[in-house]
Amino acid sequence: MTGMLDAWLDELALIGGNGRAVNRFAWTPELLAASRWLVQRLHELGLEAEIDPAGNVLGRWQAGDGPAVLVGSHLDTVPEGGRFDGALGVLSALEAIRRLKDEGFEPAQPLWIAAFNDEEGTRFGTTMFGSAAFVGDDQAELRDRVSTDGVPLSEAMRAAGFDFDLVPRACLIGSVGCYLELHIEQGPRMELQRMDTAVVTGIVGVRGYRVELRGETNHAGTTPMENRRDALAGASRVVLALRDAALSAGDITVNVGRIDVQPGGTNVVPGTAVFFVDARAADPQRFASLDALVRECVGTAAAQERLTIEISPTHEHPPTPMDPALQQLLGDEMRAAGLTWGELSSGAGHDAQVLARHVASAMLFVPSQGGISHSPDEFTPSEQREPGVAVLTAALRKLCSTQRP
Amino acid sequence: MTGMLDAWLDELALIGGNGRAVNRFAWTPELLAASRWLVQRLHELGLEAEIDPAGNVLGRWQAGDGPAVLVGSHLDTVPEGGRFDGALGVLSALEAIRRLKDEGFEPAQPLWIAAFNDEEGTRFGTTMFGSAAFVGDDQAELRDRVSTDGVPLSEAMRAAGFDFDLVPRACLIGSVGCYLELHIEQGPRMELQRMDTAVVTGIVGVRGYRVELRGETNHAGTTPMENRRDALAGASRVVLALRDAALSAGDITVNVGRIDVQPGGTNVVPGTAVFFVDARAADPQRFASLDALVRECVGTAAAQERLTIEISPTHEHPPTPMDPALQQLLGDEMRAAGLTWGELSSGAGHDAQVLARHVASAMLFVPSQGGISHSPDEFTPSEQREPGVAVLTAALRKLCSTQRP
Repeated sequence: MTGMLDAWLDELALIGGNGRAVNRFAWTPELLAASRWLVQRLHELGLEAEIDPAGNVLGRWQAGDGPAVLVGSHLDTVPEGGRFDGALGVLSALEAIRRLKDEGFEPAQPLWIAAFNDEEGTRFGTTMFGSAAFVGDDQAELRDRVSTDGVPLSEAMRAAGFDFDLVPRACLIGSVGCYLELHIEQGPRMELQRMDTAVVTGIVGVRGYRVELRGETNHAGTTPMENRRDALAGASRVVLALRDAALSAGDITVNVGRIDVQPGGTNVVPGTAVFFVDARAADPQRFASLDALVRECVGTAAAQERLTIEISPTHEHPPTPMDPALQQLLGDEMRAAGLTWGELSSGAGHDAQVLARHVASAMLFVPSQGGISHSPDEFTPSEQREPGVAVLTAALRKLCSTQRP
Repeated sequence: MTGMLDAWLDELALIGGNGRAVNRFAWTPELLAASRWLVQRLHELGLEAEIDPAGNVLGRWQAGDGPAVLVGSHLDTVPEGGRFDGALGVLSALEAIRRLKDEGFEPAQPLWIAAFNDEEGTRFGTTMFGSAAFVGDDQAELRDRVSTDGVPLSEAMRAAGFDFDLVPRACLIGSVGCYLELHIEQGPRMELQRMDTAVVTGIVGVRGYRVELRGETNHAGTTPMENRRDALAGASRVVLALRDAALSAGDITVNVGRIDVQPGGTNVVPGTAVFFVDARAADPQRFASLDALVRECVGTAAAQERLTIEISPTHEHPPTPMDPALQQLLGDEMRAAGLTWGELSSGAGHDAQVLARHVASAMLFVPSQGGISHSPDEFTPSEQREPGVAVLTAALRKLCSTQRP
């Protein structure tokens, strides 16, 4: 039984899809089209639905007057991303609601669904904008944050028909009691251990940095090698030093996935390199030590290449444990369904970690083939999606069956 | 005496200038505007002048029926370039012709001036397109070469009103007897040795490569460090290995000035890195060894990071000695003018090396303050330009005074 999920996945992948990869970024026509598509599906199921002032899609199955049970994920993608990261969580929630409607279920309290805006942070280098707005985080300092395509956030929002000043109105966390999110694992562990589903115990902490190294732009043929102040040489040292540190630490990850070198002539010694560091640790003490590690690697490389440094933290999400009672509930449902399941920590950040600061939150994983994600090759076949959808449906049925305070 | 040179430098710097740097690239409106500006100046001096089918500006002071004495340089720039590289050579030639006209000089053979198109190769990654067309090189394989902004060369030409198929018509080398070019040194040696002018003995050989490394795009938080195939890590190894090799060799230079990493998400392990290598040597044997060096550094790094490799040579200019008789003539004029002068090799490539394959060619240098070039900070003050302009004028007067076969 897949219900509508397969068809919805196919339809959604066409929005911002190029036949292979999917590109849906914050405040772009592609993501807005996907959001409107979701609003239509929610209306078809009889829910109230809208795009809120932070660009989140919010659907409400109103019932009772208790706090809402919220389920969701996100619709935006990384550049050249896949069809499942975020999308599967949103569409599994949609399918769960469809099944509950289909069976004539009557919730005892509100059941809400959210597709949070800009979880990936692709355009503005800051992740989870939408869920942060939903829980009421002050994001005023992001107003002038400039996108990869050179547009300040407030202008990108205006062009999309939104108003940065109204973002605080998206805060509805006070009406929510708990949050559930289904996601692909994005790693190889479930496949290796043949798990059908997994309960997420906690989410790794992430620190993001923008690093700018400045040396001296000069002629690549006439400047003696020993006189150069080559910003790319400095950036290269940082990339390798951070990677070596992560390999030897064993329990942290570090990535540099975006770099821009200026002025960019093949025959010009590059005077400026701007790159972004993503550093993660699940252990709180390790997480605390990441800041010093990044600054030390950058400082050493810059000194060796006689470069000046500008390091700006772009985002910081501490390690986040998931709610024990909700973990228990998910595990019980997996056991009741006769699944092979286990417990895993999440190496990726998720909107659940933002929600978890305010309400009981939990996640469940379905497998990622080959552990591949953030790639057009990410894939979870229908038969590996269904156990997760069934558990999510059962958990929502249980959470909404009794009036909670 | 600066004549019109100061005013012309100021005027020209406004075309494609942003107040600080200058950006004039092949087939762009900025470079075409500069070319048309030069045609107007040449018409004002009474020369025939036109933009040829390869985008070169060619001015002709017709006289006699012998081979032409050609003088020139280029008007295009590197990204965020300065006001003097190329431009000073063209405008010094223009000023020399103005002075010869002014004094009533009557040449005994044709005196031609050229501003060669796309010397820097900024947009299409291949240098000296215009002078190569002028000497009749077959460049048919460049038709579909794609620019940094994603446009094939033939389309960029069409958009600018040119026709790639007509480029061979720009070949006029058969009518030329010799070539002179004035240029800024672009290095620190003249300043250190307090030279007013320098005779160039030869031009360093240059090899250019486009290197593409492919690993695997994946999630930066969930992919174990030891499982990654990170294309930027590979590129970083190449950058540092090439630099170390050049430092220890002592008589070669290597530069990576342009790099593009895909897909470009901060939280995505980069699956592809494309970068450009510029490697130079003056010694012919050293020059021959550069190809193996580049391929070895790339091969080693790719093996270490489990990446696949695609290396494409983009251009190759062997070391080029300048014509001894013309060197003698320039030295004689410097001596006669009472200048402090010397002999230097050129670490930068110049159109003169393309012309030198066909006709006697020579260059003279004026100093670069601080050795800086390919930068908005490149600067040669008026009093350091004048000795070079005077020598160039005297040399042209001498070369055009007697009928040559």
